[in-house]
Amino acid sequence: MNEIPVGFQFSGVASGVKPSGKTDLSLIYSEYPATAAGLYTTNRLCAAPVKLCRSRTHSDTIRGVVINSGNANACTGEQGDRDALKMTDLYSEKIGCDRDSVLLCSTGIIGRPLNMEKIETGLANAFDLLGTEEKDVELATLGILTTDTRPKSQIITVNTKNGTVTLFAFCKGSAMIGPNMATMLAFILTDAKIAADELDRCLRLAVDKSFHCISVEGHTSTNDTVIALANGASGVTVENDDLESFRQAFTKICQACAMDMIADAEGITHRMIIDVKGCRTEDNARTIAKTVSDSALVKTAVHGNDPNWGRICSAAGYSGVDFKEADLSLTVNGTLLYDCGTPTEFDERTESAKMKSQFDTHIELTLNRGDGECRFWASDLSKEYVRLNADYTT
Amino acid sequence: MNEIPVGFQFSGVASGVKPSGKTDLSLIYSEYPATAAGLYTTNRLCAAPVKLCRSRTHSDTIRGVVINSGNANACTGEQGDRDALKMTDLYSEKIGCDRDSVLLCSTGIIGRPLNMEKIETGLANAFDLLGTEEKDVELATLGILTTDTRPKSQIITVNTKNGTVTLFAFCKGSAMIGPNMATMLAFILTDAKIAADELDRCLRLAVDKSFHCISVEGHTSTNDTVIALANGASGVTVENDDLESFRQAFTKICQACAMDMIADAEGITHRMIIDVKGCRTEDNARTIAKTVSDSALVKTAVHGNDPNWGRICSAAGYSGVDFKEADLSLTVNGTLLYDCGTPTEFDERTESAKMKSQFDTHIELTLNRGDGECRFWASDLSKEYVRLNADYTT
Repeated sequence: MNEIPVGFQFSGVASGVKPSGKTDLSLIYSEYPATAAGLYTTNRLCAAPVKLCRSRTHSDTIRGVVINSGNANACTGEQGDRDALKMTDLYSEKIGCDRDSVLLCSTGIIGRPLNMEKIETGLANAFDLLGTEEKDVELATLGILTTDTRPKSQIITVNTKNGTVTLFAFCKGSAMIGPNMATMLAFILTDAKIAADELDRCLRLAVDKSFHCISVEGHTSTNDTVIALANGASGVTVENDDLESFRQAFTKICQACAMDMIADAEGITHRMIIDVKGCRTEDNARTIAKTVSDSALVKTAVHGNDPNWGRICSAAGYSGVDFKEADLSLTVNGTLLYDCGTPTEFDERTESAKMKSQFDTHIELTLNRGDGECRFWASDLSKEYVRLNADYTT
Repeated sequence: MNEIPVGFQFSGVASGVKPSGKTDLSLIYSEYPATAAGLYTTNRLCAAPVKLCRSRTHSDTIRGVVINSGNANACTGEQGDRDALKMTDLYSEKIGCDRDSVLLCSTGIIGRPLNMEKIETGLANAFDLLGTEEKDVELATLGILTTDTRPKSQIITVNTKNGTVTLFAFCKGSAMIGPNMATMLAFILTDAKIAADELDRCLRLAVDKSFHCISVEGHTSTNDTVIALANGASGVTVENDDLESFRQAFTKICQACAMDMIADAEGITHRMIIDVKGCRTEDNARTIAKTVSDSALVKTAVHGNDPNWGRICSAAGYSGVDFKEADLSLTVNGTLLYDCGTPTEFDERTESAKMKSQFDTHIELTLNRGDGECRFWASDLSKEYVRLNADYTT
């Protein structure tokens, strides 16, 4: 593992909220007040921790994030708000910082009150274990998982004229959501010193090309959260010409996280990489990519190693984006299957075998209308996905 | 079977286009020039017969409809257009009517040229078999099917001050679409005499509350078609005060067809009836109903007999419609699970057993914002759906 950014400490413990006894409570502690930026779910039903974070994110004095898994603290009414506040107050009292300098994320079952006794004991243990060693970081990445099969983290360094800064990201989410046991959470931590509005811009640009471009089943969670913290502990200010390379690194690390999430999607057998090009606008490309990503018929075809160009092209056709049949071409894993409105001659068995032999299926749709383009990542739809989601609570 | 409308004849034959040798070519013949109305797919890739029908529907002189299954004649380029024209020309020459007085629908595999030799022979046989007996009608209802497990038809009579008229409808579609082997087709035939603009209004009103309110997987076909024909053969003119009851009967027969389609959806184990009420507008209610209908997580929960109110409420939450948590209540099969923003105490095992014991799952979402309401019908999502769609062509 590369070096994590300086000035951050981590821990993860099993509080007992997860009946399995797995790690379910993580802390990110910043030794210095950090500049923060955050993006949250657009769901009208948003969880107590999301409401709390939203009001606190625009800040230069964030000292940490509490994250629990196993219970989303969503649809839990006023008790949920009180519990969320209590969790961050326990943190701020322990650290000796302002109550508003603590952020909070929860993920797991919705509509059930938190067991605050377990959370309190867990938090006390988590404080004692804060550290910067590999095992501390690993426990923190484990404590945020729900149905994920593995922890997901990324490190990137950026060389600037003022020195080197490090970006560390970790995330969870194996369905874009399953309100009962999922949610997308991601944390991007850096020791760079960077202006708050710049950090915010980095986050928005990056999320737009990463977490906003993935789809398992298109269900937006009550708890989705992406938080960026820059604590300046490297002493390196990112400014002027270096901002662009920092932004690129920020986007790159978010894309790596997003791709990793899809690779661990519930029941996945193939990851689809969907490139849409030649659209009048980027928005048009995004609309087509999302429609193809969400199509159950495309997802089942990919699962069945079926080079079913008809399903892909017709999904583009009902996306709502205006185009003519003769504008559209489709390539799957490098083979042209549909050429400016006409199906090509190709060997289905060869294409099917190629799909079967690799985890990624690369779908490229090209229109002939302009320069707008977009890339999406999506999972396929398997019987295992249905089993996981049909047999869940009862 | 009740009496079908007078002045229509039917037949269905096996042309050999379907490799299974099943009935795959149907005729609807009108003894008199009929007033027509039609609604067609909004998919940008639309099949040759759809293009042809669209240009011919606004007419008072329609003499029949040719329908073939097993091949959709979609994405087939100029050859497809020529074949479509040829099919209706064979009909118009045989009947001795204008070429524009014949409509055409196709459903089945896309992107493959039609075997016109088989179609020609099949058409010649189908003409010879035209009739009004129960077996003739049944063969016509069979000849339009693809993955449907059974034919679907409905009859309604309407008493007006001028006399009684009959509506007969038949349809197919077991996925809202699967471009390789599905499509929604519906035909509503009546012996009423009714003005063209009135028939058009009846069709639009009815489709808006029936075929536009169903979802298997939300994929809009290249071939979706609903055609209404009124041949006036009863001698009964529907006008003035009677128009309202005719409209209601028209909507009722379309809803019965739509419900029947969903009941035969691919892999279905439960049909969901989704009522959304108390919205600011009908459009808002429709948006929420469609989002809930399309949610893979709601569909898998219903398949698993799981009264998972969190998935249903959060789907409403991300529909894009503006509301507050405290506005929302949810009833499933008559039991209140979520009451103005607060989960209720209920016995999960009892509710699950209730879901399991019946084919229909009734989901009622109520907001507190106005009078807008909408009803949707949708299928659940089962492993069998995935199997059917993953193992299809290759």
